[in-house]
Amino acid sequence: MLAVTILGNNSALPMHDRHPTSQLVTNGESLFLVDCGEGTQIQMNRFKIRRSRIQHIFISHLHGDHYFGLAGLLNSYSLTNRQDDLHLYAPAPLREILDLQFKAAAATLSYPLHFHPLEDAGLLLDDKKISVECFPVHHRIPCWGFRFREKLKPRKIDPRLAYQAGIPPDFFPQLKEGEDYLRKDGTVVPNAQVTKPAPSPVSYAYCADTRYEEKILPYIEDADLVYHEATYLEDQRTKAIERFHSTAQQAATIALKARARRLLLGHFSSKYEVLDAFREEAAQVFPAVEVCKEGVTYLVK
Amino acid sequence: MLAVTILGNNSALPMHDRHPTSQLVTNGESLFLVDCGEGTQIQMNRFKIRRSRIQHIFISHLHGDHYFGLAGLLNSYSLTNRQDDLHLYAPAPLREILDLQFKAAAATLSYPLHFHPLEDAGLLLDDKKISVECFPVHHRIPCWGFRFREKLKPRKIDPRLAYQAGIPPDFFPQLKEGEDYLRKDGTVVPNAQVTKPAPSPVSYAYCADTRYEEKILPYIEDADLVYHEATYLEDQRTKAIERFHSTAQQAATIALKARARRLLLGHFSSKYEVLDAFREEAAQVFPAVEVCKEGVTYLVK
Repeated sequence: MLAVTILGNNSALPMHDRHPTSQLVTNGESLFLVDCGEGTQIQMNRFKIRRSRIQHIFISHLHGDHYFGLAGLLNSYSLTNRQDDLHLYAPAPLREILDLQFKAAAATLSYPLHFHPLEDAGLLLDDKKISVECFPVHHRIPCWGFRFREKLKPRKIDPRLAYQAGIPPDFFPQLKEGEDYLRKDGTVVPNAQVTKPAPSPVSYAYCADTRYEEKILPYIEDADLVYHEATYLEDQRTKAIERFHSTAQQAATIALKARARRLLLGHFSSKYEVLDAFREEAAQVFPAVEVCKEGVTYLVK
Repeated sequence: MLAVTILGNNSALPMHDRHPTSQLVTNGESLFLVDCGEGTQIQMNRFKIRRSRIQHIFISHLHGDHYFGLAGLLNSYSLTNRQDDLHLYAPAPLREILDLQFKAAAATLSYPLHFHPLEDAGLLLDDKKISVECFPVHHRIPCWGFRFREKLKPRKIDPRLAYQAGIPPDFFPQLKEGEDYLRKDGTVVPNAQVTKPAPSPVSYAYCADTRYEEKILPYIEDADLVYHEATYLEDQRTKAIERFHSTAQQAATIALKARARRLLLGHFSSKYEVLDAFREEAAQVFPAVEVCKEGVTYLVK
C-alpha cells in the first residue's frame, strides 16, 4: 500500500488557506517528500507529520512554489540535530542555490545531504520495498514527474497450516518466496497450500506541472493513482496552454488514456476560491477523480 | 505615529503556531517590511496586510529564518503584476542568491527591483516623512539593525482663527512651517496664535538578532520603541552567548541603558511553548516591556 498526503494543493500564489505544492508519499515506515513549496515545514507541523522519517526528497522543477520551503526544512533538520542521511533529487541548479544559501549563513548541516541531479528519465531509487523513477513532463522550464512503484511483498505464511504440513520454520524464508516444500518422504507441500499471496503492488504517478502532453503516457500508464495538475478549468484552456499548465478536462483525458485507476487533481489557480467545478469537469471524462485537499491522505491499494 | 505589526515572533524553528521573523512598520500610507522569514506572505494573507503598499524591504541578515520568505513574496508580486518600484536593503550576497533563483525559474519580474547592499552604518532612506538608518549588531554573521525616525510634521492651522486674523490662504504653507504673519499695517500675527504644533515625531529601533552588545546603544538611544530579540531566558545565558543571541533580561538591560520608552521582545526559542516568563524576567529590569504577538500592531506615539 502507498499513501499520498497533500501538504499544499495550490498554484504559485498562496491564497484561500491553500498552500504551494508539497506531498508526502508513505510506504510502510518510509516517507518520501515530493516538492516543497514555501511553508511546507509549517504544514508538516499542522498535520503532525513525522518529518524525521523522510530520507528522500524529490523536487520536480525550480519554480519557487515547488521548492522555496526546502532550504528552511533542511535548516530545521540541522536545528533538531538530524544525523540520518538525506537524499535530494532535483534539477542541477538547485545545488548551487543551496550552497550559496548555506555559505551566506555560514551554516554546516548536522547530517549528510546527498544531491542527485535530475538529468535523464529513469530509475532514481530502487530498494526492497519501492522504486522511484523520474520522467520529463512539458513545462516552461525543465520539469520532472515521479513514479513510485511498490514492490511485490513476500507471500504470507499461515503458521498453523505450515506446522500441520510438517514444514520447519527454517524453511519459512523460501516459503515466503513461493517455493514448494519437499518432505523427506518425497511428498510435496504446494506453496499455495500454506501461504497466501501478498496484495498486488501498487503504483503512484506524480505528473508535476505540465501542459497536456501525451508523451508522458508511457511513464504513467496503469498507475493505481495519478496526480495531474489542473491549474485551470476548460474555459481557461488558452491561458493554460500559454502558461504551460493544464485544465481539469485535460488532466482527466490523460488519466483516461493512461488507463489509470484513479486521478487526483491539484495545483489550483488562486482565481478559484471554490474547487467543486474541477471535479465535475474532470468526472465527465474520467469519473474516478478527486480534488486533492490539504491534510488529507489518499490511500493507494 | 509609527505602528509595528508582528508577522512572525519565533526563532528559526517554526513551532507552537509561531513563525520566523517578520515585521511591518507603518507610517501613514507607507508600509516597510523588516525581515521576511518563510511563510511571511501567508501571514500577510492571514492578517489582511495590504502588501502592495510596501515599497521598501529591509533584511537584517542571511540566516534563513529572516529571509526565506522573500523570494516567494517577490514572485507573488510578479504574479499579481506589480508595477511599482521595490527597494530591497540587504547584505550583499542576497543579490546573487536571488539572481540564481530567478535564473533557474527563467523568471523576470514585472516591476523594478532595486537592490541596496548593506555595507556601512548610516542612512538608507530619507524622505519627507521618515528616515531609516542601519547599524551593526553582534551576531554570528554580519547583521544589521534598523532605526525608523518619523519626521516632524508641519504645524496644524486652525482655519477659523487664521481667517479671523486676516491671513490669506496663500500664506498657509509658510504658516505650517512656523512663520509669523506680517499684516500690511505692520502688525504681526504670531504663528502660535493660529497654529498648533504637530505631535512630536517618534522613532522605532529594530535590533535584529544579536548578543548583548552595548555598542549598539548610540544607535538606539531615546527610541520610543525598541524591539530586541530575547531568544532565551536568563537560565540559558550561556547558550545565548554561544549562539550569539540574548536573554530577556539582557534585552531589558539594553532598553534601560538606551533610555528607550518601551521595549518589545521577540525571536523566542521553540523550546518555550509559553512566553509569560519573558515579560516577567525583563520587567524586573525594564517595566515597560511587552512580549510581541503575531498579528498584533504596536503603536508608537
